[in-house]
Amino acid sequence: MIASFKPRARTLMGPGPSDVNPRILEALGRTTIGHLDPQFIEMMDQIKQLLQYAFQTKNELTLPVSAPGSAGMEACFVNLLEPGDKAIVCINGVFGNRMVENVKRCGATAVTVEDDWGKPVDPNKVEAALQANPDAKVLCFVHAETSTGARSDAKTLAGLAQQHDCLTIVDTVTSLGGVELKVDEWGLDAVYSGTQKCLSCTPGLSPVTFSEKAAEVIRNRKAPVQSWFLDMNLVMGYWGGGAKRAYHHTAPINALYGLHESLVILQEEGLENAWARHAKMHASLAAGLDALGIGFVVKSDYRLPQLNAVTIPEGIDDAAVRGKLLQDYDLEIGAGLGALAGKVWRIGLMGHSANAENVALCLNALETVLIEMGQNIEKGAASKAVAAAVLS
Amino acid sequence: MIASFKPRARTLMGPGPSDVNPRILEALGRTTIGHLDPQFIEMMDQIKQLLQYAFQTKNELTLPVSAPGSAGMEACFVNLLEPGDKAIVCINGVFGNRMVENVKRCGATAVTVEDDWGKPVDPNKVEAALQANPDAKVLCFVHAETSTGARSDAKTLAGLAQQHDCLTIVDTVTSLGGVELKVDEWGLDAVYSGTQKCLSCTPGLSPVTFSEKAAEVIRNRKAPVQSWFLDMNLVMGYWGGGAKRAYHHTAPINALYGLHESLVILQEEGLENAWARHAKMHASLAAGLDALGIGFVVKSDYRLPQLNAVTIPEGIDDAAVRGKLLQDYDLEIGAGLGALAGKVWRIGLMGHSANAENVALCLNALETVLIEMGQNIEKGAASKAVAAAVLS
Repeated sequence: MIASFKPRARTLMGPGPSDVNPRILEALGRTTIGHLDPQFIEMMDQIKQLLQYAFQTKNELTLPVSAPGSAGMEACFVNLLEPGDKAIVCINGVFGNRMVENVKRCGATAVTVEDDWGKPVDPNKVEAALQANPDAKVLCFVHAETSTGARSDAKTLAGLAQQHDCLTIVDTVTSLGGVELKVDEWGLDAVYSGTQKCLSCTPGLSPVTFSEKAAEVIRNRKAPVQSWFLDMNLVMGYWGGGAKRAYHHTAPINALYGLHESLVILQEEGLENAWARHAKMHASLAAGLDALGIGFVVKSDYRLPQLNAVTIPEGIDDAAVRGKLLQDYDLEIGAGLGALAGKVWRIGLMGHSANAENVALCLNALETVLIEMGQNIEKGAASKAVAAAVLS
Repeated sequence: MIASFKPRARTLMGPGPSDVNPRILEALGRTTIGHLDPQFIEMMDQIKQLLQYAFQTKNELTLPVSAPGSAGMEACFVNLLEPGDKAIVCINGVFGNRMVENVKRCGATAVTVEDDWGKPVDPNKVEAALQANPDAKVLCFVHAETSTGARSDAKTLAGLAQQHDCLTIVDTVTSLGGVELKVDEWGLDAVYSGTQKCLSCTPGLSPVTFSEKAAEVIRNRKAPVQSWFLDMNLVMGYWGGGAKRAYHHTAPINALYGLHESLVILQEEGLENAWARHAKMHASLAAGLDALGIGFVVKSDYRLPQLNAVTIPEGIDDAAVRGKLLQDYDLEIGAGLGALAGKVWRIGLMGHSANAENVALCLNALETVLIEMGQNIEKGAASKAVAAAVLS
């Protein structure tokens, strides 16, 4: 007989999921009601409003897709692209490549703009690609690359797309709630995110928002959306139906309780305060890592505070360190992805995880483990550096 | 400022979600760990084993899709069908029609076999369709039609498909855990279900299982699966990877805690006992409804015990009754779907909801409301009939 699963608690400082606020865990366990219950409909309207705040948008078509971030990505692609369309896709990490996969599976063509992993997307290259491909329908890029920790200049890139009458698909999985993101002011068209990063909710849902221009394109498609489940024309009958909601699929009720609570928490803190907290915690962590002789993959100008890709010191065994942190400290940090596998660690400071206690735990644990493994580090070096940074 | 959402509790006797066992709600709120944590990997293996038990299969490719039942449906179609393929689809309710939508969106052709709503799929018509379409790749049907409450003979239909060297796609959203379902013995190839019906878990996940024959077809496709998110070739790298799991998408951690707990509960009760409980509760409910003069849409020979579609008495206002049940008794029963909208109620006795207390509440509440609305019913008629049925 298999017994109930009672996991040992961890501190989550990887690339997501991040530590979940206990208020969200409590919300998840609330009594399940029907997906057409008037109480539930009211909560859906609130989620929409709260997401509009988080995304800084007035977009009517704003809702959580009932599946993880990669389904939110797919929702943007399958709704905007038709067979034969052309998309310009910027690649500077794992998720740009995944975008290309999505374009191909829509029967569309991808023109790629490549930048080194760890660098932001280069607006000059994008401008050139837009000029060379006047028939491109969308420009696709990742605002915050979770595989490298680089932030691209979404505002500038979207401005270029507009000049060339091109829509934008923007991955904000890791940026939403963690760094400045202004969907309306920047003119982003189709934007998707995840719940398990800077919203500090459990994984499984993908907030998306579509501009009126994008919604118009979706309504006027020639070919039906290849996914029935992700077809926004149908999903909107449920999420946008006001009091007269049409059944499309059964909403993930309790997961939505969790998202609602996470957005209420964000609203209580205030978006700008949340951005500032992520920046402040990053500064502490960076000071401590510097004292441990650990460098960043990404330059500080375009570094994401919430996703710290750092170089594994020479001679240190990646998996052994992560294993020891998990074993001795119940602390999870992330491995490198794709081209960076084995070369970097990814230390997340996302949402609820972005707090002084976590920074201290991570630095002290890492310091001890590295000293145990023979690194030449003075005991307490990280704490001293953090204190200096905080008090300065 | 929007406040935390604290729903008023309901008794869920609609077509799903059903009442969630409190043990499952508790499991949902457990501490979130990483989707690559060794503890989590072990839990995933247990979920697979428990799903194999629930489906009565040894299929290696057995896992929960990280999205609701309609995504599980789509997973079966997009993985098995390629553009130009032909599928025979049986329609005897809403979900057969949704299957046709899926076939079309895969660029495949659907040959339909239609039966009246409320009737099971007619094996003779299926046999004729298989003979007339020797090039058909799959036969698709709904085992338990949630829109009507009719059970089709999955064993016989699958046997016919095998004789014609045709794969099967079978919707078991409402049957899994509620009535006999034997994937291996009956030779079903691609089977999907939901968590919010007879497993009594929260909605949001879709258990699926693929036979080795189906898995082989998926591995040897010419065209890539049109959905990246649902591509079983990729999903298996995570779910089937043993100790070496490859990241595909971030699993919905806490939702999976809930599914694990619901499957542990099923294992504790025993599958056959769960089937018997659903049958027994149905007998009580049917006796009480009969005493209220309320008839069934579906004949008893092929009626699903867990989904009772019943005819709304002449002159009675559908929405008014459901509204009053919700208002005065916090009791949710379901409306009719599609062709049956406004004509029937759908009373669910699924999973945790299939208990004597719920049967009594539903019958007493319905009796009172109908008497208030002028129906000529003797007070206590339902209870008397149930007592007679139980004691006989």
